Amino acid sequence: MLMTARDYIESLSQRKLNLYLFGEKVENCVEHPIIRPSMNAVAMTYKLAHESKNEALATTNSMLTGKKVNRFNALFQSNDDMVSKVKLQRELGQRTACCFQRCGALDGINAVFSTTCEIDQKYGTEYHQRFKEWLKHIQENDLCMSVGMTDVKGQRGVAPRQQSDPDMFVHIVEKKSDGIIVKGAKSSITGGANSHEILITPTLRMREGDEDYSISFAIPIDTEGVTLVYGRQSCDTRRLEEGDIDVGNYNFGGQEVLFILDNVFVPWERVFMCGEIDFSIMLVERFGAYHRQSYGGCKTGIADVVIGAAASIADYNGVRQAAHVREKLGEMIHLAETIHGCGLASAYEGWQTIGGNYQANTLLANVCKHNVTRFPYEITRLAEDIAGGLLVTTPSEKDFRHPVIGEYLDKYLRGVPEVSTETRYRMLTLIHAMSFGLLAPSYHAESMHGAGSPQAQKIMIERETDMGYKQRLARSIAGIDERENILA
Amino acid sequence: MLMTARDYIESLSQRKLNLYLFGEKVENCVEHPIIRPSMNAVAMTYKLAHESKNEALATTNSMLTGKKVNRFNALFQSNDDMVSKVKLQRELGQRTACCFQRCGALDGINAVFSTTCEIDQKYGTEYHQRFKEWLKHIQENDLCMSVGMTDVKGQRGVAPRQQSDPDMFVHIVEKKSDGIIVKGAKSSITGGANSHEILITPTLRMREGDEDYSISFAIPIDTEGVTLVYGRQSCDTRRLEEGDIDVGNYNFGGQEVLFILDNVFVPWERVFMCGEIDFSIMLVERFGAYHRQSYGGCKTGIADVVIGAAASIADYNGVRQAAHVREKLGEMIHLAETIHGCGLASAYEGWQTIGGNYQANTLLANVCKHNVTRFPYEITRLAEDIAGGLLVTTPSEKDFRHPVIGEYLDKYLRGVPEVSTETRYRMLTLIHAMSFGLLAPSYHAESMHGAGSPQAQKIMIERETDMGYKQRLARSIAGIDERENILA
Amino acid sequence: MLMTARDYIESLSQRKLNLYLFGEKVENCVEHPIIRPSMNAVAMTYKLAHESKNEALATTNSMLTGKKVNRFNALFQSNDDMVSKVKLQRELGQRTACCFQRCGALDGINAVFSTTCEIDQKYGTEYHQRFKEWLKHIQENDLCMSVGMTDVKGQRGVAPRQQSDPDMFVHIVEKKSDGIIVKGAKSSITGGANSHEILITPTLRMREGDEDYSISFAIPIDTEGVTLVYGRQSCDTRRLEEGDIDVGNYNFGGQEVLFILDNVFVPWERVFMCGEIDFSIMLVERFGAYHRQSYGGCKTGIADVVIGAAASIADYNGVRQAAHVREKLGEMIHLAETIHGCGLASAYEGWQTIGGNYQANTLLANVCKHNVTRFPYEITRLAEDIAGGLLVTTPSEKDFRHPVIGEYLDKYLRGVPEVSTETRYRMLTLIHAMSFGLLAPSYHAESMHGAGSPQAQKIMIERETDMGYKQRLARSIAGIDERENILA
Amino acid sequence: MLMTARDYIESLSQRKLNLYLFGEKVENCVEHPIIRPSMNAVAMTYKLAHESKNEALATTNSMLTGKKVNRFNALFQSNDDMVSKVKLQRELGQRTACCFQRCGALDGINAVFSTTCEIDQKYGTEYHQRFKEWLKHIQENDLCMSVGMTDVKGQRGVAPRQQSDPDMFVHIVEKKSDGIIVKGAKSSITGGANSHEILITPTLRMREGDEDYSISFAIPIDTEGVTLVYGRQSCDTRRLEEGDIDVGNYNFGGQEVLFILDNVFVPWERVFMCGEIDFSIMLVERFGAYHRQSYGGCKTGIADVVIGAAASIADYNGVRQAAHVREKLGEMIHLAETIHGCGLASAYEGWQTIGGNYQANTLLANVCKHNVTRFPYEITRLAEDIAGGLLVTTPSEKDFRHPVIGEYLDKYLRGVPEVSTETRYRMLTLIHAMSFGLLAPSYHAESMHGAGSPQAQKIMIERETDMGYKQRLARSIAGIDERENILA
Repeated sequence: MLMTARDYIESLSQRKLNLYLFGEKVENCVEHPIIRPSMNAVAMTYKLAHESKNEALATTNSMLTGKKVNRFNALFQSNDDMVSKVKLQRELGQRTACCFQRCGALDGINAVFSTTCEIDQKYGTEYHQRFKEWLKHIQENDLCMSVGMTDVKGQRGVAPRQQSDPDMFVHIVEKKSDGIIVKGAKSSITGGANSHEILITPTLRMREGDEDYSISFAIPIDTEGVTLVYGRQSCDTRRLEEGDIDVGNYNFGGQEVLFILDNVFVPWERVFMCGEIDFSIMLVERFGAYHRQSYGGCKTGIADVVIGAAASIADYNGVRQAAHVREKLGEMIHLAETIHGCGLASAYEGWQTIGGNYQANTLLANVCKHNVTRFPYEITRLAEDIAGGLLVTTPSEKDFRHPVIGEYLDKYLRGVPEVSTETRYRMLTLIHAMSFGLLAPSYHAESMHGAGSPQAQKIMIERETDMGYKQRLARSIAGIDERENILA
Repeated sequence: MLMTARDYIESLSQRKLNLYLFGEKVENCVEHPIIRPSMNAVAMTYKLAHESKNEALATTNSMLTGKKVNRFNALFQSNDDMVSKVKLQRELGQRTACCFQRCGALDGINAVFSTTCEIDQKYGTEYHQRFKEWLKHIQENDLCMSVGMTDVKGQRGVAPRQQSDPDMFVHIVEKKSDGIIVKGAKSSITGGANSHEILITPTLRMREGDEDYSISFAIPIDTEGVTLVYGRQSCDTRRLEEGDIDVGNYNFGGQEVLFILDNVFVPWERVFMCGEIDFSIMLVERFGAYHRQSYGGCKTGIADVVIGAAASIADYNGVRQAAHVREKLGEMIHLAETIHGCGLASAYEGWQTIGGNYQANTLLANVCKHNVTRFPYEITRLAEDIAGGLLVTTPSEKDFRHPVIGEYLDKYLRGVPEVSTETRYRMLTLIHAMSFGLLAPSYHAESMHGAGSPQAQKIMIERETDMGYKQRLARSIAGIDERENILA
Repeated sequence: MLMTARDYIESLSQRKLNLYLFGEKVENCVEHPIIRPSMNAVAMTYKLAHESKNEALATTNSMLTGKKVNRFNALFQSNDDMVSKVKLQRELGQRTACCFQRCGALDGINAVFSTTCEIDQKYGTEYHQRFKEWLKHIQENDLCMSVGMTDVKGQRGVAPRQQSDPDMFVHIVEKKSDGIIVKGAKSSITGGANSHEILITPTLRMREGDEDYSISFAIPIDTEGVTLVYGRQSCDTRRLEEGDIDVGNYNFGGQEVLFILDNVFVPWERVFMCGEIDFSIMLVERFGAYHRQSYGGCKTGIADVVIGAAASIADYNGVRQAAHVREKLGEMIHLAETIHGCGLASAYEGWQTIGGNYQANTLLANVCKHNVTRFPYEITRLAEDIAGGLLVTTPSEKDFRHPVIGEYLDKYLRGVPEVSTETRYRMLTLIHAMSFGLLAPSYHAESMHGAGSPQAQKIMIERETDMGYKQRLARSIAGIDERENILA
Repeated sequence: MLMTARDYIESLSQRKLNLYLFGEKVENCVEHPIIRPSMNAVAMTYKLAHESKNEALATTNSMLTGKKVNRFNALFQSNDDMVSKVKLQRELGQRTACCFQRCGALDGINAVFSTTCEIDQKYGTEYHQRFKEWLKHIQENDLCMSVGMTDVKGQRGVAPRQQSDPDMFVHIVEKKSDGIIVKGAKSSITGGANSHEILITPTLRMREGDEDYSISFAIPIDTEGVTLVYGRQSCDTRRLEEGDIDVGNYNFGGQEVLFILDNVFVPWERVFMCGEIDFSIMLVERFGAYHRQSYGGCKTGIADVVIGAAASIADYNGVRQAAHVREKLGEMIHLAETIHGCGLASAYEGWQTIGGNYQANTLLANVCKHNVTRFPYEITRLAEDIAGGLLVTTPSEKDFRHPVIGEYLDKYLRGVPEVSTETRYRMLTLIHAMSFGLLAPSYHAESMHGAGSPQAQKIMIERETDMGYKQRLARSIAGIDERENILA
């Protein structure tokens, strides 16, 4: 049974979440004005599954059961499934203009699925079977997962086992007959407070001595010992104000939490890796490839909104046909589609794993994401250019609603006569939210660091390149190696 | 007598300001937590005048009276005076990390000074003398001015006289024996609520029929009929929260207001242009050159803080010596100094006006500013890269102060062991403020649109170039025109 | 029967080519040292058809006859066929490091195929059948075609019918019972002197009055009345010197000719469009999309050689492991793969025409090519950076062969001791050829202008974008249009 | 007595140059068609000294004798002298469109002058006095010098003393009572074959054991034991062809030679440093700062020609007023003036050395040059864009002069009717020369590597930055260090 958006929202109330925000425990997260828009964004992933025009994108048949499931809970059974993911992400980016928080887990389950298969082959373990059972449970209940990969890390460049505080990476503190006790914290957990379960994975290559850190498992988000702390976002408290304009995007928003595990018990049937240090990097890199591909979808969808907003404000200012404005809009589209093209290419050029699901083309996925660390910044820079200086100097909605001041504003902040001042003002606040405000983290910093920071992609691009082959090509052309005889 | 910072703050309380913020009239602007930091930034311009190490930068002798005055109220008596301006601006940018709001008026008085001289020469008017008298008053009382140039403009590309609402540009509604009555609104007035007086100037080239719009004058900021509406800034209400961390820059901030003139009376002795449509563009372009030069100072000073913050967070994360981090820091410095170099060059290469003061080199000033519409975006992009994803996912200061949660945060958000978590957290919020928050408008959108949007610079760069000369060079080299005989 | 490379070269001697080079008629083009390398590049397309590892890329079954044909003479029967084209192009770029000249015609036949089908549907003409017959002839004889699209154009922006010289676009001067007489010239004909036949098409949108210019036809390259004039290339006469090093790429090179038609007769069975002005733009845009996609293949292959050369010279200089060198090599790869990704995406996302063959995704093809107008310049800039200043200051091969001077050079121009000076010198000349010399036109100016200049792509990108849809998205998010109800 | 251009050319014939080109000893360099244009470019520096409008730029009074000297042989007696240098360089770049080869020595004598003064102070040596005597000799005879800094270096990153071949850096092989015997080779010596004397300096920081490599001296260019080998340039042999068009720049060109010292004797009075390893880096960095500043002059002058050429070809094609063409021309100007602005700023912001001459601002000089490693590439990329594809496909001048073919070309390669085809063709070949041909090394690779490669500037920019100061600024703003009390 696929949940509706409403079902999903309601289901969240059932959880006993230990969530803190602004120094207080959140009692009713579903009605919290700062949190709710982020739930709405997730809810859109449920809504699309019921839209006839998007059903084919938003749902698929389970590789495990054959039953219809939400695509966000499904394994990729073909390259086309990855293509559909990227297109679904674009649709969701367009509909929410923010991070809708479910890609991480989708990419995570696919990486854990294929990696556990290979661990079991080598070590005779039973992680893969356990994982499939757990995933069936997720699919059958149409649950929302988040993925917890990024450890807090402490001193960068120092291995888990060598950190001065041993808890800087999530690790086992005790192995018991029925499960393990784990401790640590995962940082920047996208949608953590909006999910039913969380899938934990390692965050980097492990080496000898890091066995206790080389673990993967899944737990309900409200498991005992878990604490979530809500991350601030730019202009977050505008959601607490009266009115709906100044937030820019009233309905939707992203969410990041700090996820703390304080001696949490995980039963064995939910443990999918436990000490296999030689597989941690496979899991990380497979997840990374999937997730870097994902950015070719969602961030293009957000770009569509930014571009539409820039074109609209140009209309409202009366400059839409100016050559430089058209040039800038064209450039914005060009950059956005470059990202999308690379995302699609990494999907079409995927390959089948031993486990049977499909994996993104690593090189192209990294190329896609690396462009994502650059182009959204240029896209909003151009949007700010087109918007004009009023973008950062408009008064508040309260001023617009004031009987005296409001009239002044209505008169003086109008652009072309045929568009109302409020319309123009709303469009400006949307662009503001994209560049500075509530949506800016989703579109900027997340583009930079989500799925790995720029340098991580540079390293993978170098690793995925057969430079020796390229050098042989050059040596042959240069006549250092024997030149190719065209008549031979 | 040069005011101290304290004198300045106190003097502001004397004004009967008609200022609105969040739909309410502000009764005590000096103590308002949102407004006060912007006053502090202005106050720094007063403070420097009393610092022995900065006195030479921050003060000079009046061209009108020979007495010592604050540099922000002085005419440029040499190219070196403009160089000092640019260096003073960098110092202030470094000390406040935001817009300190006084450059506009400094640049404005210099433009009005030389333009009125030339108007009088052509038309036998007496604007120049009036202006000098008024400026003496400003200097003698060490007042703070703002400049009101940017009209709200309505439909872009439509002349003042042709707007469907005749008030979209400030204009005369009545000429009387003792003065004029004016109406309209000026947008994005930097530091408007922090000044004693405002100098109004036209914003674009005027043509026949625009005579009533071609006006310049000065009035006290609390003149009857004037209303100011405070512009929102990203994360502005963080200033209303307890604590001092989440704002990023607790002490200082920028300020932009909408400045509305509702049938305001201006006595003739304060009118400096009144219908001379052929001089409006001279005033605009001279102001523009000065002000585009100014960005080579202040924005470099802000960049210094961003660069220092990025290097610090790299230290705290333990990655300062990573090659890619050093490369990125080097690039940030390179971009910032490119801006500064162009600003300095436009000062050193200035020229003396008929009025006797000195004018910025127009071409280089526009080149300087045009780089400012690009490089700060790249500088903060790189800072966000270095900062890491935690930049946009840190919890609130309230969480850090919470007895239980605070301990978790202190433990898990630490970077290198020798730096406290709070130190790291503070540095992250500073970078956040620069990229997204309270300082981002000063460093981004203002860099984009202040002193004219990018296209305005492109037009001036084209206009200032003798393309015919360059084409003759090319024709001679190509042998289309006669080639130069080296032996002749 | 698929020709071998040797068959192809020999077949070229059979033609009675009217070709001029350096003011002289070329009597034996096959043995001409300037021309032969360009033939070798074409010959590689024949060679690959016989290589077992590349056969699947280089050949396919004819849509018209079912027989095996060279892929360069085949219609695209699926999106995968376009993908194979792009990958084949990359292989050929890697093997020749230059333009191998056959993509234009491949893209041209596909555009004419589908367009003639639609013309016939509208006008009841028989172009499509004629075209298929002609194409069968090409396929059966495994001929090499060039495509002649770009007219010399005279004054840009002036329609064919309005040019002061009526011959600035190829046009009909007489219609006869058995055919047409045509006049004009086509510019920058890639591989014109290396082909057996040429396919002529219009170059822009035609309007009323341009009927005589709206024509497409095919003729043997040595038809009476045809004159070819060879275009110069940078460092072309190095091919006339002794030795094989200074040319950089001894075996392979590109070729562009001016193609002049002086009252040439074309029989009706070879005429594929004749006056249908409303279809000229369809042909142009379909060709453009295919050909802009093509650059995602060939230019990536050339980039592979440049990257391999840069890595090699870094090895020979002893700096390969320097962080900034690795960073630059990584950037070069990133840029090259971005282009390739977009090319692949435009292939995978193609669509079937009414005629039955497949067409490139227009938006993504234009995005691909637009990146090609930028990234190769940055790639060679970085290669020049890595190569060091010796790149442009090495003496000649004759100096290296000189008994006295040669010893000096061998001693002093050595890099790391374990690599011979000659090896280093050869690699430098290859990079020189890519940046400045014989390969630079293929990699730079052709990347800029081939398949349309940057502005042409900007226009298509704008046209292919449904901006109204993007604006609706923005209006909904901003609450201008009704916001989406997530619970509905 | 200041030589005229003619005097200079004639004086070159007096030398007994041991110069090789294309494997042959050059007997008459002055009449050699490949070499002469490079002499003409140098001669322009003599010509300007006699032009009344440029005399103030091109000459000055000697700091040593008070007599009038060519600026290229003078010490900088003020910051304004450096400003004049930069402006003179721009004038010369405009007049020659290439490298005029004299800046290196000018920058070199200033660096040696101040460094020898400080060596003498520390070690009680007499280098400074020797140097002044030698420089007086140069000034009095108005000689042309080159500077030999860049050793061939062998394996990069390996110190001189550790190279497997001890001659990879110029060094002393014997010290005698009357002088030293030196051996080695200097690479990429700009204008080496066009100078009377050469000033040799070390190329990097020396350490213990490198004493014999830490040397500076001057010798006549035709000293016994010296061999020069001419570096090839792109399209160099076009200078040997009939006609004057295809070379692009018929009159002027650059020159680089390999300079080999095979046991050359240097008398003590011409030795200016001999073993003082602790001063080699001072000399290198001072030279580097001067020379990186120089690129803000000459490369801007060349850019002026490129921009003029691009505007002209746009005229000839009939597209000059197209918005995208104007935008691109504006961008080219913007980039060129950014370079110039930074060059000027580094001159204005110079400082006086202990020796009394003036030194460039190191940070700004490096920033200037670093932009030079980027912007000229973008400038020619845009010029290629504007020029159109014909840029790389025009036939040869011989074809244009052919009775039959020439008529075709005259007809078909015309742009707007009012401009002759030859004019258009000439402008295209000029742009070709700038992008690919004879001028491209001067404008591209020399911009990249001249005065040090990009990484060298990055290192200096990092070194010249007081990052601790920037970090203190950030810590104060963030409240980590005590915040500044504005009222204090």
